[in-house]
Amino acid sequence: MTRIHAITLATRGQGLYEFTAEAEAFVASAGIGSGLLTVFVRHTSASLLIQENADPDVVADLQAFFSRLVPPASSPAMDYLVHRLEGPDDMPAHIKAALTQTSIGIPVHRGAMVLGRWQGLYLFEHRDRPHRREIVLALTT
Amino acid sequence: MTRIHAITLATRGQGLYEFTAEAEAFVASAGIGSGLLTVFVRHTSASLLIQENADPDVVADLQAFFSRLVPPASSPAMDYLVHRLEGPDDMPAHIKAALTQTSIGIPVHRGAMVLGRWQGLYLFEHRDRPHRREIVLALTT
Amino acid sequence: MTRIHAITLATRGQGLYEFTAEAEAFVASAGIGSGLLTVFVRHTSASLLIQENADPDVVADLQAFFSRLVPPASSPAMDYLVHRLEGPDDMPAHIKAALTQTSIGIPVHRGAMVLGRWQGLYLFEHRDRPHRREIVLALTT
Repeated sequence: MTRIHAITLATRGQGLYEFTAEAEAFVASAGIGSGLLTVFVRHTSASLLIQENADPDVVADLQAFFSRLVPPASSPAMDYLVHRLEGPDDMPAHIKAALTQTSIGIPVHRGAMVLGRWQGLYLFEHRDRPHRREIVLALTT
Repeated sequence: MTRIHAITLATRGQGLYEFTAEAEAFVASAGIGSGLLTVFVRHTSASLLIQENADPDVVADLQAFFSRLVPPASSPAMDYLVHRLEGPDDMPAHIKAALTQTSIGIPVHRGAMVLGRWQGLYLFEHRDRPHRREIVLALTT
Repeated sequence: MTRIHAITLATRGQGLYEFTAEAEAFVASAGIGSGLLTVFVRHTSASLLIQENADPDVVADLQAFFSRLVPPASSPAMDYLVHRLEGPDDMPAHIKAALTQTSIGIPVHRGAMVLGRWQGLYLFEHRDRPHRREIVLALTT
């Protein structure tokens, strides 16, 4: 049996947005013992990551790394890019999404996700402008 | 209950090969309501991506980025590579596979994958020569 | 129904540690036909990969690539990093984990994982010092 639940996150430009609490609440509401939670983002210019949620410098440094690895299309290093319809942050957003995750599976045990002590669930927004991002949670038991 | 179905894609060198339709057909044939589709590629020099299938420039630019990030083993930048048994595209293929996905989980709702409007499923072939690539689809309900 | 099993791997510094046999043994012990095995690592400075387990040079080259793409925080190229609490291998470990996997789903068919002939399951340790790493296996049928 699979329960489906969609959540929407409003983003305010590039960065990591935590939604661990929303996922925990969905799993708790199901009242199950063991199972599998699948988290899926319905976009190709935003992605998913599980990362440390203790020190906020970690997610800032992650964003800094990806912005250097994949600079805006206006940078000379990226002049080979062809897809430029939606601005200099568009194609780099697709690339950063390809380097991270569209989908993550998290085992559920004794009614809760088996996340480690410092693990948080993040939406990684790769576009500059605000977006509404849809995430589907699927709980299979 | 899990239904298993294997598909084989014939590739013609490096690039992204879409197989969204084949996955959709398998899910539709199962006649289920909700569930989870797991897509798994049985190779270590090809991988999986969900990416935009509207503008074909996106997948071309993705391939261009990965070819610059991980150039052929014959490039001076890669002279530290030891595994060179099968030619200059061999070890870079393993690296590009490590940077993308071997497995993707996609929730199924009302009998169909919950893919976003622009999301397509791709096999990412990293070798120069044609290959037959086996993908396993597993539908858990 | 989902069966949960945790395994702990003792690492001895950066590198890839294979645990295919442990996962195979868990799947075999369940005595099932078809299903889905989810492998999940409960850490943000170690990650998961499926890669070739035939030639050990492959995993050594993978580690070499990632160490060049994400050098230690003491390297001038990484002087923008802010999170430095636990030493020069700390923040690069989070970045390398973000570039690989925290979770992998593997279909099970006829009682065994559908791994390809050369595919092995690896824990990718990104820290210099020995660690005990916990991996959760969840078998959904």
